[in-house]
Amino acid sequence: MMKIALLGSGRMAHVYGPKIAEHPHIKLTWVFNPNLASAQKVATAYGGCATDNLVQLLESNNIDSVIIATPTPTHLEYISACAQAGKAIYCEKPLEQNKEKVKACLDVLSEYPVPFMLGFNRRFDPEINTLRTAVVNGEVGDLTFLMSWSREPEPPPKEYIKRSGGYFVDSTIHDIDLLCWIAAELPQEVYATGSCLFSPDIGELGDVDATMTTLKMPSGCLVHINNSRQCCYGFDQRLEAFGSKGMLQTTNQRDDNLIRWGLSQTEAKAPLKHFFLERYDLSFYLALDAFYNSVSKGESPLPNVLDGRNALIIALACDQSRREGKAIKPVYE
Amino acid sequence: MMKIALLGSGRMAHVYGPKIAEHPHIKLTWVFNPNLASAQKVATAYGGCATDNLVQLLESNNIDSVIIATPTPTHLEYISACAQAGKAIYCEKPLEQNKEKVKACLDVLSEYPVPFMLGFNRRFDPEINTLRTAVVNGEVGDLTFLMSWSREPEPPPKEYIKRSGGYFVDSTIHDIDLLCWIAAELPQEVYATGSCLFSPDIGELGDVDATMTTLKMPSGCLVHINNSRQCCYGFDQRLEAFGSKGMLQTTNQRDDNLIRWGLSQTEAKAPLKHFFLERYDLSFYLALDAFYNSVSKGESPLPNVLDGRNALIIALACDQSRREGKAIKPVYE
Amino acid sequence: MMKIALLGSGRMAHVYGPKIAEHPHIKLTWVFNPNLASAQKVATAYGGCATDNLVQLLESNNIDSVIIATPTPTHLEYISACAQAGKAIYCEKPLEQNKEKVKACLDVLSEYPVPFMLGFNRRFDPEINTLRTAVVNGEVGDLTFLMSWSREPEPPPKEYIKRSGGYFVDSTIHDIDLLCWIAAELPQEVYATGSCLFSPDIGELGDVDATMTTLKMPSGCLVHINNSRQCCYGFDQRLEAFGSKGMLQTTNQRDDNLIRWGLSQTEAKAPLKHFFLERYDLSFYLALDAFYNSVSKGESPLPNVLDGRNALIIALACDQSRREGKAIKPVYE
Amino acid sequence: MMKIALLGSGRMAHVYGPKIAEHPHIKLTWVFNPNLASAQKVATAYGGCATDNLVQLLESNNIDSVIIATPTPTHLEYISACAQAGKAIYCEKPLEQNKEKVKACLDVLSEYPVPFMLGFNRRFDPEINTLRTAVVNGEVGDLTFLMSWSREPEPPPKEYIKRSGGYFVDSTIHDIDLLCWIAAELPQEVYATGSCLFSPDIGELGDVDATMTTLKMPSGCLVHINNSRQCCYGFDQRLEAFGSKGMLQTTNQRDDNLIRWGLSQTEAKAPLKHFFLERYDLSFYLALDAFYNSVSKGESPLPNVLDGRNALIIALACDQSRREGKAIKPVYE
Repeated sequence: MMKIALLGSGRMAHVYGPKIAEHPHIKLTWVFNPNLASAQKVATAYGGCATDNLVQLLESNNIDSVIIATPTPTHLEYISACAQAGKAIYCEKPLEQNKEKVKACLDVLSEYPVPFMLGFNRRFDPEINTLRTAVVNGEVGDLTFLMSWSREPEPPPKEYIKRSGGYFVDSTIHDIDLLCWIAAELPQEVYATGSCLFSPDIGELGDVDATMTTLKMPSGCLVHINNSRQCCYGFDQRLEAFGSKGMLQTTNQRDDNLIRWGLSQTEAKAPLKHFFLERYDLSFYLALDAFYNSVSKGESPLPNVLDGRNALIIALACDQSRREGKAIKPVYE
Repeated sequence: MMKIALLGSGRMAHVYGPKIAEHPHIKLTWVFNPNLASAQKVATAYGGCATDNLVQLLESNNIDSVIIATPTPTHLEYISACAQAGKAIYCEKPLEQNKEKVKACLDVLSEYPVPFMLGFNRRFDPEINTLRTAVVNGEVGDLTFLMSWSREPEPPPKEYIKRSGGYFVDSTIHDIDLLCWIAAELPQEVYATGSCLFSPDIGELGDVDATMTTLKMPSGCLVHINNSRQCCYGFDQRLEAFGSKGMLQTTNQRDDNLIRWGLSQTEAKAPLKHFFLERYDLSFYLALDAFYNSVSKGESPLPNVLDGRNALIIALACDQSRREGKAIKPVYE
Repeated sequence: MMKIALLGSGRMAHVYGPKIAEHPHIKLTWVFNPNLASAQKVATAYGGCATDNLVQLLESNNIDSVIIATPTPTHLEYISACAQAGKAIYCEKPLEQNKEKVKACLDVLSEYPVPFMLGFNRRFDPEINTLRTAVVNGEVGDLTFLMSWSREPEPPPKEYIKRSGGYFVDSTIHDIDLLCWIAAELPQEVYATGSCLFSPDIGELGDVDATMTTLKMPSGCLVHINNSRQCCYGFDQRLEAFGSKGMLQTTNQRDDNLIRWGLSQTEAKAPLKHFFLERYDLSFYLALDAFYNSVSKGESPLPNVLDGRNALIIALACDQSRREGKAIKPVYE
Repeated sequence: MMKIALLGSGRMAHVYGPKIAEHPHIKLTWVFNPNLASAQKVATAYGGCATDNLVQLLESNNIDSVIIATPTPTHLEYISACAQAGKAIYCEKPLEQNKEKVKACLDVLSEYPVPFMLGFNRRFDPEINTLRTAVVNGEVGDLTFLMSWSREPEPPPKEYIKRSGGYFVDSTIHDIDLLCWIAAELPQEVYATGSCLFSPDIGELGDVDATMTTLKMPSGCLVHINNSRQCCYGFDQRLEAFGSKGMLQTTNQRDDNLIRWGLSQTEAKAPLKHFFLERYDLSFYLALDAFYNSVSKGESPLPNVLDGRNALIIALACDQSRREGKAIKPVYE
């Protein structure tokens, strides 16, 4: 049984809490938050002892591994503490929001080489996984185009945006990680552009709520991503992989699969799963399960800290491209 | 924890074995078969003690309930024994193959009123359930037509057919139960016709391998069922409910939901789930779970012995209609 | 140029009028109705001289052929007159409503063997034609099941029903003709049942507004038809041909082929084409064109008077089956 | 009756020839080619007199208008001659391949203001038209994204590429025209990138065979285009318009609309219409019909010479962006 501590007790803690409870071989032993009352709520809901004392927690016998689900700017601090304490780490994405802190993470993990997995949970979505496996097996031949749609039902609150690192670092980073993982290469050039169309709050913060991103891969494969902070018909999540031998597409998932016909609809489908918690629900469990399996077999989990670094470098290049109005060649170091 | 014994160690035992193992509140304690070696195999695979002694088993302290998954002609004998021993019973469909033995089952269960559930597992399929709930809630208004397609990938072996009770009793009975359950009424008249098109074995036994069945309901709702023992593209399972306010259709389930385009296909879907074990896999678990919940709450499980009797009466009327070439009015007694 | 006279100036005259006008090689020369004012309206709209004098019309030099689009009970009289006058005849379906008058039609056409085509226009629908050709070419192997859905948006007026010959003769006859033509055989046994669910008017006339029909073919192929006089989502027209090597399905046609996503719909399709005039619009033109081609090449047009007789015999058997509650073996003579 | 001359007797002459023949109000009177034998072939096939003498042709009484379907580099010369002769002009796209010659075209048409229509035929495709009308009517609210897929079955011959003006000017120009027409605005910034993945011939000429293009509109709407010179599953043509109130998508057109199920396919659709001649067949007729209607009513046809100029400016900016690796701000003058 893997004894796991949950650092953080916000939104993501409520995602991981039930997944830990459901897993037959992982047990939630601690919930940490500098705000003890908040930690207590999560511990009450999913088990474990609440604490506001990280040192004590890491010295406890009752812990093998941690999930870091705290605000992004604290990741480096907690990774550092947990790695020094020799704990296996599962860290929510993004790794950090700037390259210097990411570099510091790499240094820490190089010095204290504990098992480390970055929570790019979408890699574990079964349908995306099936598509990626088919691409890797050559089902579509050489890749010509990879495309990703990620449109959210509605913009997050202004407070969230303020700390998000911008749309590319907060959200496009998921598409970037998936597409680089599927293509098995990193872009040599990125171009991104954006508009602020829906949310004056986002505009005031200098951020955008609708973006289009182009990545040019060394193989010549061209990648397109479109992201929107608003989508009136729900959480639109699609992938398209087009190559010399064919094309593969994922389909949006729905509340049910019935076909409905009525006075005002013919052959209608059910609403899309509402947002990422519903759409990617299973992937959170499967990601945690993969972490457990890797750690228990002594293997290095994937995606790792380099995947996190690369995705951040690309997302930052997108943001720079958007702000400067020119293509950027990312440097992976 | 519900301590359950599995009577029978054939094909269906291998369906229920893993479902019991998966269930957090049910424990397999015994596996019974007059052929001890066969029982032993199942016990080795899924747990429990093998035995060829039913009396001993029923006297054991280590049993609350049974799953009867033995050949249909033995159901009455085992129901009788288990009911007298006061065990909760989950019995595979069909209840029995002739009306006299079904009547005897009713008598036994009237004298020894233990919790009894009949294994019409398809009622627990989430998609069929969603359709039924929508119909019951009036989403399609008054029902005009109910239609069911059930086409199997390939005919079963001759030995299976010989003991099956005929196509209607063996297989159409599933469609009959579902459609009567959805319509919430029993047909006043049935007409069925059949052909033997694929399997000379089936023809030699006087049975048919392709049938069309019409049920006329008291409300005026008309019901169509088509069944085929062969279907080159897989296990085709569809329902259509058409009424004054609209129509609902279920869709076939597939190995995955990717869309594939290539040299010889455009917008192609994945193969259908192969057969009933794959297509209705989840429903076996959910049926067992419903049994557990009813029994543990002291409620009467559904579908019950009357549902089993009614479905059999209708299936036998279909068979009679097919043989005599005329419509039959079933008598529900 | 084929000079054609239109007998009748009701609803179907307004279907054929524009088709004649559109055809480069057919010219409308006469419009006949015992009510001259009614004939005049059609002549004004689509060309030709109006007349209430059939004798004069048939003696005119300005006529090669006729379209009989008068009320069904008058078909025999007009077929007889036109055949004796040596005109090629295109006659609206059904041929007649009772077997005796149909027999008289056959006798007349045997004595005066003019080119004769029955207006089962749906045979000329391109999509249905493609399905039939594929079936004939063995694409689905040996036929197991043939299924047809024909559901009308709303019931016709009581006056129409009164003269319609009943639902089977008026409407199911289309499905019957199509399915026998696709299967290339005639049923040896028919069973039909019906309900009156929507329209009290229809019930008062002893007719039904929802039917299910089963045809058993000599090959063993089983045929299902469902018809409804009401369908809240429009004119639902589908065919399914299932055989040993696969299945073919037609799809409903729509106002356009866009996919729409919005606040209350995801992946929605456009409304179905409203009713038979819209759905089968092209088939009326193509039927007329086939008539022109056969006549101008001296070939016998299809479908012919025997097709009309056979479809009527089957439709009448369905009606008898529905009234008597038993299967009927049609006699084709 | 509009008397029309066809300048050019190559591939496009064989597109327009049959469309003229089909049109009830347009008559082909002349076919011109400096190579008389080539002109003769087209005249023999579709009517009109062949000539290699443009002066004589333009002085003839037997001509009201011309279709210029000659190689693009000759467009200016023929537009100039025909405009001076006062003929209405329908000119194949692109207008010309460089801005100077386009400017000269504008000057000519300013001095000799004859009716002029540019052959962006895809605007007349009924489905694209329906999408555009819906967008213009606000069905999707304010546009966020517009996307276009245009993938050709296989690369054209090297000789064709050599004279094509490059992929953007030859082909992307269609997507550019459609998307600017739908959005009703012109991009303020374009970015394009490309690869040469399929055809060494194309690479040798310095051109690309797979491109992704981004247009940023003044409204903030972001536009994506992907083009591929090879597509193993056929001619993939899709549009997606996403806005604040919803999304509209066109669907690919197919050889037929049957659904096929068999040993190696389930719910399969027919192959896509092969290439632009099949997919946009109707649009060529409708474009010609729109030209006829505008000219005969004395109205100015659309798309006009400015539409042609703007699309070329954008296409050239895309090519420049692709070569220089940076975003370009087009200047519309």
